[in-house]
Amino acid sequence: MPLEIERKFLVRGDAWRQQAERVVRMAQGYLNDLESVQSGAQQVSMRVRIAGSDAFINMKSREPGPSRQEFDYPIPVADAEALLRLATGGLIDKHRHYVRHAGHLWEVDEFHGDNAGLVVAEIELDAVDEPFETPAWLGPEVTHLNRYFNLALAARPYAVWSDGERRPFPETP
Amino acid sequence: MPLEIERKFLVRGDAWRQQAERVVRMAQGYLNDLESVQSGAQQVSMRVRIAGSDAFINMKSREPGPSRQEFDYPIPVADAEALLRLATGGLIDKHRHYVRHAGHLWEVDEFHGDNAGLVVAEIELDAVDEPFETPAWLGPEVTHLNRYFNLALAARPYAVWSDGERRPFPETP
Repeated sequence: MPLEIERKFLVRGDAWRQQAERVVRMAQGYLNDLESVQSGAQQVSMRVRIAGSDAFINMKSREPGPSRQEFDYPIPVADAEALLRLATGGLIDKHRHYVRHAGHLWEVDEFHGDNAGLVVAEIELDAVDEPFETPAWLGPEVTHLNRYFNLALAARPYAVWSDGERRPFPETP
Repeated sequence: MPLEIERKFLVRGDAWRQQAERVVRMAQGYLNDLESVQSGAQQVSMRVRIAGSDAFINMKSREPGPSRQEFDYPIPVADAEALLRLATGGLIDKHRHYVRHAGHLWEVDEFHGDNAGLVVAEIELDAVDEPFETPAWLGPEVTHLNRYFNLALAARPYAVWSDGERRPFPETP
């Protein structure tokens, strides 16, 4: 039973692009409705993802904070395509850039479609308090802001966010 | 993308037991809440099943009538145990008896726990109108009665049904 610990940040500028060692186009959608997960009526989110020429079904427990149980299984791409047609809400379309920095692998997600303009960086850690070096392009942390969940972005995309929601932190000079 | 066509019936008496060629104990639960599937907010039910020493994750589209899209993937038993702890509603505990009759394989589910007393027989068909021979122990069809869905039984078990719900058809002499 793998335990996932992830922290999520906004990104400043474009300097991370030069550091990217690999990039994969991803299409993903959710089989559950956002509301039943947010209300606690359903404890698990169910994601279908096509990443390049691979496809996966993923289940994550929804718990407060950065740590969750995660289950990920490969499935045939044709199944994933059929399941995406049964998805709730919109589909997420993004490029995931893999960026290595000071021994850690960052996943920088550059969203398209209804979420165009949004770029977030995630780091997976072995412990909640594991230290890591902060890249110069890293912005403020949004781990605890539910609207940045991909599940939430499928239901309520970046395109409809208010300006205050898009810039939740005061600009630093 | 496998398409599943199933019809479900009540069972009369115990004569099917002599015909059973195999029996498997199954524990299963659902990761979605019943309401979001019944309301259409979520189009897919998500089942975790441990069958003997094997485990599976299963997704079914919820469509009216006997035909649905079904996706079934083997997963490690330890994952299934962790996922069952995240299940919504109660767990289903049943023996599935495999009964061959006139060239068709019937699955006769004998429920335990909160669903004890309920026995239903299912047949999988290649077409909605595929003919099959009716065994003497077969009772009235309940394919279209949602309360007999295993998903519904996890949320509202047989133990709390009214007498009228348990005997939806007039007794035949």
